Amino acid sequence: MAATTPAPAVPEAVVDLGRRAKAASRVLATASTAVKNEALGAAADLIESRSSEILAANAVDLAAAEAAGLDATPLDRLRLTDARIVSMAKGLRDVVGLPDPVGEVVDGWRRPNGLEIQRVRMPLGVIAIIYENRPNVTSDAAGLCLKSGNAALLRGSTSALRSNVAIASAMRAALGSCGLPEDGVILVEDTSYETATGVMRLSGYVDCLIPRGGPSLIRSILDNATVPFVIDGDGNCHVYVDSSADIAEAVAIVINAKTQRPSVCNAAETLVVHEAIAPAFLAAVCPALEERGVSLVGDDDARRLWPAMSPAAEADWETEYLSLKLAVRVVPSLEAAIEHVNRYSTGNTEAILTSDLRAARRFVAAVDSGTVVVNASTRFNDGGEFGYGAEIGISTQKLHARGPMALRELTATKNVVWGDGHTRT
Amino acid sequence: MAATTPAPAVPEAVVDLGRRAKAASRVLATASTAVKNEALGAAADLIESRSSEILAANAVDLAAAEAAGLDATPLDRLRLTDARIVSMAKGLRDVVGLPDPVGEVVDGWRRPNGLEIQRVRMPLGVIAIIYENRPNVTSDAAGLCLKSGNAALLRGSTSALRSNVAIASAMRAALGSCGLPEDGVILVEDTSYETATGVMRLSGYVDCLIPRGGPSLIRSILDNATVPFVIDGDGNCHVYVDSSADIAEAVAIVINAKTQRPSVCNAAETLVVHEAIAPAFLAAVCPALEERGVSLVGDDDARRLWPAMSPAAEADWETEYLSLKLAVRVVPSLEAAIEHVNRYSTGNTEAILTSDLRAARRFVAAVDSGTVVVNASTRFNDGGEFGYGAEIGISTQKLHARGPMALRELTATKNVVWGDGHTRT
Repeated sequence: MAATTPAPAVPEAVVDLGRRAKAASRVLATASTAVKNEALGAAADLIESRSSEILAANAVDLAAAEAAGLDATPLDRLRLTDARIVSMAKGLRDVVGLPDPVGEVVDGWRRPNGLEIQRVRMPLGVIAIIYENRPNVTSDAAGLCLKSGNAALLRGSTSALRSNVAIASAMRAALGSCGLPEDGVILVEDTSYETATGVMRLSGYVDCLIPRGGPSLIRSILDNATVPFVIDGDGNCHVYVDSSADIAEAVAIVINAKTQRPSVCNAAETLVVHEAIAPAFLAAVCPALEERGVSLVGDDDARRLWPAMSPAAEADWETEYLSLKLAVRVVPSLEAAIEHVNRYSTGNTEAILTSDLRAARRFVAAVDSGTVVVNASTRFNDGGEFGYGAEIGISTQKLHARGPMALRELTATKNVVWGDGHTRT
Repeated sequence: MAATTPAPAVPEAVVDLGRRAKAASRVLATASTAVKNEALGAAADLIESRSSEILAANAVDLAAAEAAGLDATPLDRLRLTDARIVSMAKGLRDVVGLPDPVGEVVDGWRRPNGLEIQRVRMPLGVIAIIYENRPNVTSDAAGLCLKSGNAALLRGSTSALRSNVAIASAMRAALGSCGLPEDGVILVEDTSYETATGVMRLSGYVDCLIPRGGPSLIRSILDNATVPFVIDGDGNCHVYVDSSADIAEAVAIVINAKTQRPSVCNAAETLVVHEAIAPAFLAAVCPALEERGVSLVGDDDARRLWPAMSPAAEADWETEYLSLKLAVRVVPSLEAAIEHVNRYSTGNTEAILTSDLRAARRFVAAVDSGTVVVNASTRFNDGGEFGYGAEIGISTQKLHARGPMALRELTATKNVVWGDGHTRT
């Protein structure tokens, strides 16, 4: 596609990276599955054989981050270990085993005039990924882009720069060793704000931008991006316990959805309970949650039934706690539950627990979220749990990809029309 | 989905329209096919029964546009006639006969743990359309949005305002008469620039923006939009005549692609010819094109073979003429043709004319455009010719929809997960 001139704000050095990535993407787009798999295997081998070099670079990053006073959690995310190196290499080898999405004929038909039309999966081209301080994203993302025939333009954090350079360099060498262009993986080494904004505005070079970061990165993309993007947004997830729910099963699911891993986007943040089951259900679930360290806030009706609960403010319904805290609302009907969910949800994952088929079908149809779960934990909204074998994020938008994104979501369809000299009349 | 607070620039009146459209979209999303079809039929009837009212409003628009000195072509686009009213009504009735995309199970599978996952088509929600002065877009677009369960937020041109108000009012009355919310179709009656920009920034209310207009509208969307959009962009389309092409067939296709309707986006703008066939092919096609009034510009090699041709400048390769003008380039190989196409194309439609299967397969795989045609005219890249029964535009972007867009492209998929009390370990 013609490279429309990027807005003047894009630094020339960034345009040059875009140009190189685009040129490499032309070659990767038609590379065979065998060659792409060979390069993935070579990358895994190189990451392992260069592990001392990668760990040394990471040690310098860690020392600088510690000196700069980075907190324990981000420091842990930044840290590489022998085990994490092995896991990065294993991740690349796992991608070898996944089906290549390129060339899949999504559908096809013949027209009355004899024209044959097929919709075929093709690589997107250049995928830009802006991410925070986990260096393993460098190899994970580059591996998925490579398998799907895309060039990866990676812009990681300043704190992980040396680690990322070492990992990207191994990926590039692997591409080169298999006769593929090294520019199929490009790390943006200038980690300034201007460069990140430049990547967001590389119209004509970047075919899809996938951010992996917090609300301020998302905001910056909404404000600045001129390239297409897929947002991996927040997860203010709901579990609705219908009047017909099995209480023991519902207690187990709510505990799982809230406490199995509270810091992730598909953990539950609000419990919505039908008033008919609320007395019995809250009496069962509240002590079980409190026992596991969950602090509860609720509306007046919930607090009447479980007075130990603190009062919920309006902000509680909007908050993704990402911690052992849960908001509880009692509603008079299924419709009121759907209304609450559609009002406050971020479109990530919502569950209904019910034995009533009609209620399940209504909730599934009316709740406007990427994934709706019936009688299971919200924690199943995950590329691995879906069987995708990989995950590059969970899209909370509606266009292009919704829910867990893997290799298929890194492709576009192309319309191919086969004729025998057809002209239009 | 939670309505994230729109940026301060959005006028409160526009936010209010977004809120009303979103509320209506909740109802339309689960409306039955039967009710939606009933409303489409009622809208067709009302447009016909109110034709004198609609034509009167259009006459006022036309008089004002003429007084303001509007050119003949846009004036003609603005003009409604009895025949155009009938055609608008027929368009709505045709949509009744198309399959409802909502509820289609795109795929589904069972996981080893027994969870069943389905990907199901759902309406996008609120679709905003910003369009220029054809009033028939008001009913066409609203009809497709309605059939696919979406609310339509329509922002037409100032020049067509009275016509659009009359048509939208018929659509709203039809919705109301079938028990559906009238706000399923909302016309933005304030046609100021600020309001258009406001619509582009209605995050949380507008789920997809589809512009139907020229480069300045597209530029404004790239610069201002915070809502997701699908671009219906330019068509700098190529026909490549391979060394193995059948000359008579290729001449017929090039004439068709260039002259059958030169003003549309899927007409050919550049002819790329393999040097081995150039002498014979240009000797056949050039007089045939000139006979039909096509003016030719070419590179040095083309001009050596057909000296009547003017020299092509670099800008010619980038230009969508939309008129009886064609640029001609001679290339030494299939690969050089692919390189030219991928450099200058806008990603709309490209054709290869060849009898060589390997060349056809290589061109199809390597050309990075929404639609690639083999041995047929570029003019077939069209929703009607694809058999979609309708078209809301031709996407030149890669994400979400590529090529002709119809009802399916107005939906998103939702992941539905069915369990039996599953928790994650």
